[in-house]
Amino acid sequence: MRLRRLQAGLLIAMSLVVLPALADTPKATPTTKELIAKSRPEEWRTPDPNNLLYMQLPQGRVVIELAPDFTPLHAANIRTLVREHYFDALAIIRVQDNFVTQWGDPNDDDNGDKTKIKPLGSAKRTLPPEYTRTIDPKLAWTPLPDGDVYAPQVGFSEGFPAARDPAGGSEWLVHCYGMVGVARDVAPDSGNGSSLYVAIGQAPRQIDRNLAIAGRVIEGMQYLSALPRGTGPLGFYTQAAQRVPILSVKLAADLPPAQREKLALLRTDSPTFAAIIDAKRNRHDAFYTLPAGKIDICNIDVPVRTDAAATGH
Amino acid sequence: MRLRRLQAGLLIAMSLVVLPALADTPKATPTTKELIAKSRPEEWRTPDPNNLLYMQLPQGRVVIELAPDFTPLHAANIRTLVREHYFDALAIIRVQDNFVTQWGDPNDDDNGDKTKIKPLGSAKRTLPPEYTRTIDPKLAWTPLPDGDVYAPQVGFSEGFPAARDPAGGSEWLVHCYGMVGVARDVAPDSGNGSSLYVAIGQAPRQIDRNLAIAGRVIEGMQYLSALPRGTGPLGFYTQAAQRVPILSVKLAADLPPAQREKLALLRTDSPTFAAIIDAKRNRHDAFYTLPAGKIDICNIDVPVRTDAAATGH
Repeated sequence: MRLRRLQAGLLIAMSLVVLPALADTPKATPTTKELIAKSRPEEWRTPDPNNLLYMQLPQGRVVIELAPDFTPLHAANIRTLVREHYFDALAIIRVQDNFVTQWGDPNDDDNGDKTKIKPLGSAKRTLPPEYTRTIDPKLAWTPLPDGDVYAPQVGFSEGFPAARDPAGGSEWLVHCYGMVGVARDVAPDSGNGSSLYVAIGQAPRQIDRNLAIAGRVIEGMQYLSALPRGTGPLGFYTQAAQRVPILSVKLAADLPPAQREKLALLRTDSPTFAAIIDAKRNRHDAFYTLPAGKIDICNIDVPVRTDAAATGH
Repeated sequence: MRLRRLQAGLLIAMSLVVLPALADTPKATPTTKELIAKSRPEEWRTPDPNNLLYMQLPQGRVVIELAPDFTPLHAANIRTLVREHYFDALAIIRVQDNFVTQWGDPNDDDNGDKTKIKPLGSAKRTLPPEYTRTIDPKLAWTPLPDGDVYAPQVGFSEGFPAARDPAGGSEWLVHCYGMVGVARDVAPDSGNGSSLYVAIGQAPRQIDRNLAIAGRVIEGMQYLSALPRGTGPLGFYTQAAQRVPILSVKLAADLPPAQREKLALLRTDSPTFAAIIDAKRNRHDAFYTLPAGKIDICNIDVPVRTDAAATGH
């Protein structure tokens, strides 16, 4: 009991100093779950099935949402590759600890058999890089208040973590955990979406604006993050048997509605998302007694609903 | 060839604008490997074997360096637990994606059999929290130049990523990838080192100063980061068979020198470490054409040497 009273006293003291707005409500910060339970249906969005990839691995299904507002040419090329079954029977070729898991054609890297490279079909071989885009005031923008080490501004745009340079007039998606990027060779236009990677550790923000980001894993991330690390240079698997086969990649829009995943994402321009960010910034409860008062763009997950309610709106 | 020339031109242009100090050296930034190759023997340190834990898992050995400069009471208690074989035959009990892997006594959590909890022997049941310490000017401090979202200052202290609040006079270790923290119950003094966790995703910096950090994984991180994620609440494994057994945890000092790992760490107050940070901040080469110009504390790894040269000094 003494401990409990001490903690309450600490919270009040901190509220006065660090969190003046909370001075009269020194109770535990609501959890994300509690805030979501109070959300309204219109705060959720059902992703466009034209932007949803289902990548089937032996372990389970990975769902990726493409980001055509930022990388439209890459989204279009990836859709073409998917529809022509380019990825089916390819593999996860590389897992570098605290960096990326990458997939594509095992024959299309330095140790592959160049005579067996899978053709890209009607997809384009090169694309403009799309590393950044001009700021579009029509896109929703939810800025964060705590600054960023790498960019002048960070926030969420249309569901994705992003950065802005208001002086230069550009914006770009940032390499947080779970973001899916476009692998390429040295030439900036050599990325075409036939090999993709996902960030599986500390956000590699230093590569922002040097690679195009195609989208984000919104379900099944554990099937990509928990794979054995490759022992070759850069985490490439050195033996074919180590690679995880990709059974298929399909576009949700190409499946009958009944076969699509029931999922919805909390809108990043919604009041509930703002309340979740605020609660994360100022978290204080019986366990966490010292709120950070700040949050990094890559420490915020966008809530995903996979329950029946996800299809109701 | 046209591409190569274009890139060179871009590098010169950027050097003039973004990197004035490099204007007359528009060549590729040296790699970490190249910088390490030029390092001097005295820039490396051999960790004190009294601070090194060897945790043997079926997959391989994890090496953890304790941080007694920051959490001396926890280091002492963990040494006691190790020497009394507390951890042997315990298990990894929890893997929560993008957060932590945790190990300890499976019976000492909510679903465990409380009658079978392993006794702590002569180790202490409670410890002062040691979340922060008073800044000690005798400890080496290598500050970073690019700020931080969470703390007034960040840098490296005695080999570990750390933060400082000069106004408050305190410093603390920060939860970067690979940092090992002390699990506890609600009471701040309930952490005693018998259950530890390691950060396996985006640095959970919001829990800094709410938990004690005991040290850092310096080898074998992949044996903790690539484990299947638990499917219970908070990533706890729901079935005993899912848990990874800990075969043993030993202190390097308790092994004959011939059985100790041959490893050395680059001193974080060395010129080569400073050069590596600078190269990471300003990386530009044929592939990465836009240097970040900045770096986050948790995007810097402390180089570890496991070759024969590691024992030469």
